[in-house]
Amino acid sequence: MTASFSNAHHSPVGAFATLTLGHKAAKGGLGLELAGPADEAIYVGLEEPEGGRYRALPFFEGGEEDRAEEFDVEHLSDFSRPAATVPFADAEIARTMGAGVDEWRAGDLTFRLVSPVRSVPDPESADPAALRDAVCPAILAELTVDNRSGTRPRRAFFGYRGSDRAVGMRTLGEDGLVGVAQGLVTGIATLDEGVYAGLAFAPERILEPDADANLAFLVGNLGLLVGTVAPGEVRTFRFAVGFFREGTATTGIKTRYLYRRFFEDLEGVLRHALARFDDSLREARAFDEALASRLSPERAWMAAHAIRSYLGSTQLLEREDGSPLWVVNEGEYRMMNTFDLTVDQAFFELALNPWTVRNVLDLYVERYAYEDGARRWGSDEIHPGGLAFTHDMGVGNVFSRTGYSGYEQSHLRGCFSYMSAEELMNWVLTAGLYEGHTRDLAWAVAQRGTFLAALSSLVNRDDPEVARRNGVVGLDGARCAGGAEITTYDSLDASLGQARNNLYLAVKGWASYVLLESVLRRLGEEEAAEEARAQAARAVETIVGAADSDGLLPAVIGEGVEARIIPAIEALVYPFVLGLPIDARLQATLARHFEAVLKPGVCLFEDGGWKLSSTSRNSWLSKIYLCQFVAERVLGHAPDAAADRAHVGWLADGENGYFAWSDQMLAGKAVGSRYYPRGVTSILWTAQGERPIEEIARFLRGSVVA
Amino acid sequence: MTASFSNAHHSPVGAFATLTLGHKAAKGGLGLELAGPADEAIYVGLEEPEGGRYRALPFFEGGEEDRAEEFDVEHLSDFSRPAATVPFADAEIARTMGAGVDEWRAGDLTFRLVSPVRSVPDPESADPAALRDAVCPAILAELTVDNRSGTRPRRAFFGYRGSDRAVGMRTLGEDGLVGVAQGLVTGIATLDEGVYAGLAFAPERILEPDADANLAFLVGNLGLLVGTVAPGEVRTFRFAVGFFREGTATTGIKTRYLYRRFFEDLEGVLRHALARFDDSLREARAFDEALASRLSPERAWMAAHAIRSYLGSTQLLEREDGSPLWVVNEGEYRMMNTFDLTVDQAFFELALNPWTVRNVLDLYVERYAYEDGARRWGSDEIHPGGLAFTHDMGVGNVFSRTGYSGYEQSHLRGCFSYMSAEELMNWVLTAGLYEGHTRDLAWAVAQRGTFLAALSSLVNRDDPEVARRNGVVGLDGARCAGGAEITTYDSLDASLGQARNNLYLAVKGWASYVLLESVLRRLGEEEAAEEARAQAARAVETIVGAADSDGLLPAVIGEGVEARIIPAIEALVYPFVLGLPIDARLQATLARHFEAVLKPGVCLFEDGGWKLSSTSRNSWLSKIYLCQFVAERVLGHAPDAAADRAHVGWLADGENGYFAWSDQMLAGKAVGSRYYPRGVTSILWTAQGERPIEEIARFLRGSVVA
Repeated sequence: MTASFSNAHHSPVGAFATLTLGHKAAKGGLGLELAGPADEAIYVGLEEPEGGRYRALPFFEGGEEDRAEEFDVEHLSDFSRPAATVPFADAEIARTMGAGVDEWRAGDLTFRLVSPVRSVPDPESADPAALRDAVCPAILAELTVDNRSGTRPRRAFFGYRGSDRAVGMRTLGEDGLVGVAQGLVTGIATLDEGVYAGLAFAPERILEPDADANLAFLVGNLGLLVGTVAPGEVRTFRFAVGFFREGTATTGIKTRYLYRRFFEDLEGVLRHALARFDDSLREARAFDEALASRLSPERAWMAAHAIRSYLGSTQLLEREDGSPLWVVNEGEYRMMNTFDLTVDQAFFELALNPWTVRNVLDLYVERYAYEDGARRWGSDEIHPGGLAFTHDMGVGNVFSRTGYSGYEQSHLRGCFSYMSAEELMNWVLTAGLYEGHTRDLAWAVAQRGTFLAALSSLVNRDDPEVARRNGVVGLDGARCAGGAEITTYDSLDASLGQARNNLYLAVKGWASYVLLESVLRRLGEEEAAEEARAQAARAVETIVGAADSDGLLPAVIGEGVEARIIPAIEALVYPFVLGLPIDARLQATLARHFEAVLKPGVCLFEDGGWKLSSTSRNSWLSKIYLCQFVAERVLGHAPDAAADRAHVGWLADGENGYFAWSDQMLAGKAVGSRYYPRGVTSILWTAQGERPIEEIARFLRGSVVA
Repeated sequence: MTASFSNAHHSPVGAFATLTLGHKAAKGGLGLELAGPADEAIYVGLEEPEGGRYRALPFFEGGEEDRAEEFDVEHLSDFSRPAATVPFADAEIARTMGAGVDEWRAGDLTFRLVSPVRSVPDPESADPAALRDAVCPAILAELTVDNRSGTRPRRAFFGYRGSDRAVGMRTLGEDGLVGVAQGLVTGIATLDEGVYAGLAFAPERILEPDADANLAFLVGNLGLLVGTVAPGEVRTFRFAVGFFREGTATTGIKTRYLYRRFFEDLEGVLRHALARFDDSLREARAFDEALASRLSPERAWMAAHAIRSYLGSTQLLEREDGSPLWVVNEGEYRMMNTFDLTVDQAFFELALNPWTVRNVLDLYVERYAYEDGARRWGSDEIHPGGLAFTHDMGVGNVFSRTGYSGYEQSHLRGCFSYMSAEELMNWVLTAGLYEGHTRDLAWAVAQRGTFLAALSSLVNRDDPEVARRNGVVGLDGARCAGGAEITTYDSLDASLGQARNNLYLAVKGWASYVLLESVLRRLGEEEAAEEARAQAARAVETIVGAADSDGLLPAVIGEGVEARIIPAIEALVYPFVLGLPIDARLQATLARHFEAVLKPGVCLFEDGGWKLSSTSRNSWLSKIYLCQFVAERVLGHAPDAAADRAHVGWLADGENGYFAWSDQMLAGKAVGSRYYPRGVTSILWTAQGERPIEEIARFLRGSVVA
């Protein structure tokens, strides 16, 4: 049995931290706030039965003793030793990856990383102990050695080669905690009896030290924890892998990590995590079993993988006034709370911890909303527009200034242009999902003005002349300064990239009006609700009327862009999950379009994977997952196991596997949006009944927290 | 006129920070606590007279717009622009580097980095304002553009591409301060009118933005400050380049940077530095002029270069009880207060700020002293030894545990073995220099026990049998556990690497006894002083008696190691600078040896550079400088301008120049101890009179502080 050698995240919640592991060589590691793997070697291994030689999982490169050459430049010392640590062969290794437990078996060794999928209670009302448990910035590891057939003690080890360029490695060794760490920031520790820690250039000098005092060789950047298993025994060692950022976490808005409320240092984090080992392992296993019971192996693997990448991107901060600030960082781009992602991740977040969705929506209103005019393509005249939201809140721990994203630029027609209309819809849809799911009417009342302003702005962006309104965004934001708004599909061609008259955005706009109508009626805003209803109806007419004689819809309505796109159906998800009515003609039109395009040569790759646009080789897995849910649950399309197998193949491909879960696949190759959180749209697969978010919430609650 | 394209440090004092610049391409940058250059592109340039094209110093690589491909994976956007920034040709660039001012001229541009050599007052008694000025973690820059012949405004720019992997770039723009920064940690700012800041992938989008709002493109990791010079004018822009580490600086001993007493953030640092621009520039120029007036151009250049690398390695910390802790980090190895370096840097430090020497000596006594036995080579019997000191205090911001260095390992015969005897001498010599220079008798009284214990331990390491003592270390420390002690020349062969019976260490031991005698007499410890005198006399007999009929001394006495070494003369420096008597026979013997070995094929390389050992190609510049001083001032050897030219050539060589000032040169190639602080032994060159440290102190005080 062979294993997948894909990297996967193994992350606590809200620490923007990960032990990324799975890819061969020094391609994983302990990363804090990084845009990709830390590229550190991880050592997990055991002594051969005959002693003196070691086998390890293949997450290292060897040859490290060469670092001694930087000191001993003419190789005159008797310091170096022959390498004695050899990786297991691929065929010896078996791997089983769930969302909470990732396990490798090789020879007499079993290594298990444990990172439960945890709900984070609302920090403004949570029991402090429960909050501390949820946000403790550590994961856990178990290393089991079966030495029942052995005749001599065998050593087992776990450790890493730190890659932080500013601080050295150190050992921990106080009050029973034994560990290795890099500076204040990352570390691995155990409370197990008889385990020792050491530093060196190469593992052999730690595994067979000439003297205990030699183990604190601070010049070495490899740290290992080493234990011994007696002959005839099976022994399991337990470790915590911790992360810690001490000071100010972000600029623009000054914050610290919320876990700093509870933890003063890395050692405290490691101790707390170890104390809760049993609970964490039980939680992690329960989630994995529940996921496996609901999904095919392919879907369970993709969902687990995606959830891992999502958790590694989460960052729970605390502002100077003590209020929480939730961020999901955008994978390799590290844009903060990118709204295009928030709306897609909302299904997962609402089920797991809805307060995080509200938190992001509130910060968008507080700081990342702006007023803007609108103009017709090719005209300099500025028409009334209204409320819009930014694409993101900043990049790489730098919050952008009020009213601006870190990404959007004027005067452009493609990537990096403004996304004002889509982000406005994203606020409406995310807010509609939040309010619809939680029925937090007090919040909706507080946001009454925002809902009304959003409606007005959406309508204005349709057309300044009432008579010419068709329910579809037809103008560009004035901030584009003559450029053209784009959609979240910023790297695709006009089939999905252009906002104005885009079919994908037309349906998304329709859904926005439907959700607005629902909320506004609950707010007693009948007049506005009626306008939303009317706009939704206009959108239906426009979309239905755009179908050609074969039932195919153009990617851009009325502009002669004949590309065919799957995401025409995407936005059906919003009314569907809230149980809101979907116009029958619209549904029928989209269903007919969908079945017509999901064909080889149109919107299927040769391997059976879904191709979002007939004119682009770039397909995005998060959106495929979302559209699969819509196709299956709304349109009654049968699940497509061949497509799932193709999508698994994309992710598991050797080069792609370096980036853990990735979104943008150019003919199956991960080219952008790598190491990415958006794949949690896959959680929708687990919902088979009437009220999907409630169902997912029950599933997550049942499996996640008591 | 062409320029040297060597990297040089441009550093504040005590911040372990550097703007390293000089090497072509993205090979310099703003580094905090790093083992080498940050490998960042630095942009310094101006617009061509005709406009729309730019020339810059060659410290960048171009092609950066490619980063847009990570977003725009199929190149569909109209975002990218043609590159318009071209480096000046080598022949157009002139560079003048002093210790305080480093200046490049090219075309109509003059760029000047200003980092004065500053004394740091004792934090336990200093005026807070003076201390704040001294430790402000920033340097300064001036960019002058001569547009007198221009007919249109020309833009000028200065900025960098941040390489920190955890945080993004940002712009600063509050209360008149305009700047670019990376996270909390590094930044460049100005208070000049009309300058703006921007972020992008490539300079052209900042130099010619489509709109001001586009300048805050947080996705970009290049930050530039841009000003405009009117036609007919010469304008100078002034910048500060700042560094800031907010939280805990070190583990093992918990500290923060002492500058945190005065500065809350990077912005405060930048403002303070800019406010003191005139004073800093005056200080920097005064020092450079004084240095140039005392030394040949070659020596002035090497001394300036070495002082820069030293300053970039300094780190002034504050312990939790508020007491200061001074660290010099060991270049690429980042070992902390390596004692082998402390003793060599003491001449410079005692002249500049003697309290730092005392601070290091005290911490060695407090935490990095240990008691150890001694044994004869090949025997298991442990004889009395006594006090010893560790090689260093830790590595890379990790203080090692009490009584142990981060480097020393038992059971070895070469690199990474213990240096107990030499470090014991290093404490005695450094303490003797401190006490001898400052006449801080109160401190000597407080250290009475240490001086006495040091003498006892030195004597014990000679031989356990009184009758067999010859004044030379003949035993190895018990911690070696059968291995052999080494000297600071850890990467050389036995000619300098082996401690026992080593000629270099024999003279160093003799000097230790001479200084001990002097201190002990002032302490009224006549009996001990007499023992020190007797041991010194024995050492003289041993060394003098080791000369062969040609007057040549063996590198290892009595062991048949016929290698010839220059550092036989090194330790004459200690009694000489303190005005203590040097035994005439010893001096004559060493003089004869020195003149005999300083010949091609023995201790001279073909290029005329000094070869420390006849049997090793590895020669160390810091020690060459020290031995040059001894040869010229003690032994009357004429200054060797050809050797100085060869040594300049080693440092300036293209590949070597990447590492700024480096120590270990293997046949002229920098192979170890790169990016290194020890070269400040060169300050001794500036002393021409009777009491060198006092003379250097007067020189530094006269040029450095009012």
